Amino acid sequence: MRIRNLQNIELLKKMNKYWSEIVEKLTPYTPGEQPKDKILLKLNTNENPYGPSKKVLDAIKLSVKQSLRLYPDPESEVLKQTIANYYNLSKSKVFIGNGSDEILAFIFQALLKKEDPVLFPDITYSFYPAYCSLYDVKYKKIPLDKNFNIDLKKYVLNNGGIIFPNPNAPTGIPKKLVDIENLIKLNQNSVVVIDEAYVDFGTESAVKLVNQYKNLVVTQSFSKSRSLAGIRLGCAFANEDLIEALNRVKNSFNSYPVDRLAQVAGVEAIKDEDHFNEITNKIIQARIFLEKELLLMGFSTLPSGANFIFTKHRSIDAVTIFKKLRASGVIVRHFEKPERISQYLRITVGTHEEMRKFVSILKAKI
Amino acid sequence: MRIRNLQNIELLKKMNKYWSEIVEKLTPYTPGEQPKDKILLKLNTNENPYGPSKKVLDAIKLSVKQSLRLYPDPESEVLKQTIANYYNLSKSKVFIGNGSDEILAFIFQALLKKEDPVLFPDITYSFYPAYCSLYDVKYKKIPLDKNFNIDLKKYVLNNGGIIFPNPNAPTGIPKKLVDIENLIKLNQNSVVVIDEAYVDFGTESAVKLVNQYKNLVVTQSFSKSRSLAGIRLGCAFANEDLIEALNRVKNSFNSYPVDRLAQVAGVEAIKDEDHFNEITNKIIQARIFLEKELLLMGFSTLPSGANFIFTKHRSIDAVTIFKKLRASGVIVRHFEKPERISQYLRITVGTHEEMRKFVSILKAKI
Repeated sequence: MRIRNLQNIELLKKMNKYWSEIVEKLTPYTPGEQPKDKILLKLNTNENPYGPSKKVLDAIKLSVKQSLRLYPDPESEVLKQTIANYYNLSKSKVFIGNGSDEILAFIFQALLKKEDPVLFPDITYSFYPAYCSLYDVKYKKIPLDKNFNIDLKKYVLNNGGIIFPNPNAPTGIPKKLVDIENLIKLNQNSVVVIDEAYVDFGTESAVKLVNQYKNLVVTQSFSKSRSLAGIRLGCAFANEDLIEALNRVKNSFNSYPVDRLAQVAGVEAIKDEDHFNEITNKIIQARIFLEKELLLMGFSTLPSGANFIFTKHRSIDAVTIFKKLRASGVIVRHFEKPERISQYLRITVGTHEEMRKFVSILKAKI
Repeated sequence: MRIRNLQNIELLKKMNKYWSEIVEKLTPYTPGEQPKDKILLKLNTNENPYGPSKKVLDAIKLSVKQSLRLYPDPESEVLKQTIANYYNLSKSKVFIGNGSDEILAFIFQALLKKEDPVLFPDITYSFYPAYCSLYDVKYKKIPLDKNFNIDLKKYVLNNGGIIFPNPNAPTGIPKKLVDIENLIKLNQNSVVVIDEAYVDFGTESAVKLVNQYKNLVVTQSFSKSRSLAGIRLGCAFANEDLIEALNRVKNSFNSYPVDRLAQVAGVEAIKDEDHFNEITNKIIQARIFLEKELLLMGFSTLPSGANFIFTKHRSIDAVTIFKKLRASGVIVRHFEKPERISQYLRITVGTHEEMRKFVSILKAKI
């Protein structure tokens, strides 16, 4: 036995001989299943049920031409200016990246690697601890309260930065802007990062505070409310000093990050406010419908400001429901860990029509 | 004076209060100028003078549709398989990223962060030291020989990895595959990374060695020979153990890295071999023409296996030539440092027509 163990250790060492030390510690994020078989309802990765606006698709098609041989504008100037106008901010306070995940990675490197640990909720986006492993950033998880709320009073302690999504994921619960502003004021010695991937579905954005506070960073995504998950585009907002730090990291990492088609898509997605308002309102209405129907079926759902809900049944096991739905061609998301959320299911809000179909399948199964 | 200095230091400290320590040390890569004014000839960033194949453009257009609301395949399986078939390799030996710059960044994190320094030429792609600063990787620059060749004998010493472009940049000089293979054999304790961004213009690729050597990584780009600089796409080849390390870093960084349109573009770019062969051959022919003409004008040009040449005039100062060309609407690339290359200009090889125009402008100016 002892010899066999030694052989295993030897094998392991050999396998990893060329790896940097950090690699062994990485337990990568598992994205939601992207099924290859035919699925009736895909409600597991919080994509938008509505496609991008026709103006976006037309603009991309017009850019599919010989000039793809040329590098994109490394600074995404036109896109930055369009976003800056939309939020009534200076262009110098806008940062662009390949999805908000990439921007969050730069933030962990540029602004959160400190002597003191970065603070985030114990139940939140699982990429935060992944970035900490990757960039060797110290962190401390702050427990959600008994109602799954982020209790901002618990964040008033020495830290190397604070980060949380608003609304939080996977709970969907939003924080009030006044409470966030209060935390920013109390936390002048490090940055506060508000990850607003899901903000456009009824949660108040902190972007309007960026001009006032030098320690605030807000990140947003084009993957949800802008229906461009397939394109990979995100942006961030902060004071120029913080943007400078992000630029230094970005420009040491990839010289021409955001491609020509994504830049064009982003510009048109921001400009078409009618499409944006129409689809986000529809999704909010469908969420209200879904919440009501689930309540009638014996589910309790956390209050959501996102395009998904987090819900558990009063008596039926979550994995049982998950499996029955999967067998009917419906995918939702279930998290085994931590234990505290293992009875919950995360369900992406689709169209009203899809939610009606979902409810009728669910009724038939439970 | 003393007081003023103290104030400056105070100001500097204040400016950087929220930055991670590493940020102050970063001196980002400066990409070649992307001019916004009208330019006659843009020969400064090694883009392909020919656009992508019509099949690539058609395939992208067909993918510009409602499904852009959905995340891309996080593993780029179809693209991986297409590239694997092209090189007659297993799919498990292929890695995909947003341009080879992104992949190189992952390589520095996953495979080159070691006790011993990583080795690369003193005159080479300036992103290598940028990655070392960003990820805190030790490095040692190995001087090129008097003819600007990479002398591989000098790399036989304790190291945390070896990386160089083949052909080298900005010299354009290729190494023979037999010499590279010899180095790989002599350097079994760490990885050898061959950066083949420019390999398709007459340099022999090391991809065919990937099945034999467990310590070899080869990176390639779609920005040059595949005419897709505007799209951001690159790939790498290595043994499964090394690919696993890259995947762990990638999956801790960005869950859906390569967008839907880029994946489709890549597949068609690989499949259209006729277009690829036609344009790479034309560029090689145009390079031969340019080298001959420059020789007649008193330039000496380093032997190039790339889509650019590195050349200096026997008597006229490089900056003088650079400025005269710029004033005529022609942009080439000049590197002030190191001193040893400050009399050289890097000129991207365009179409035959463009090279004739370039030669005639140059003749008129010097």
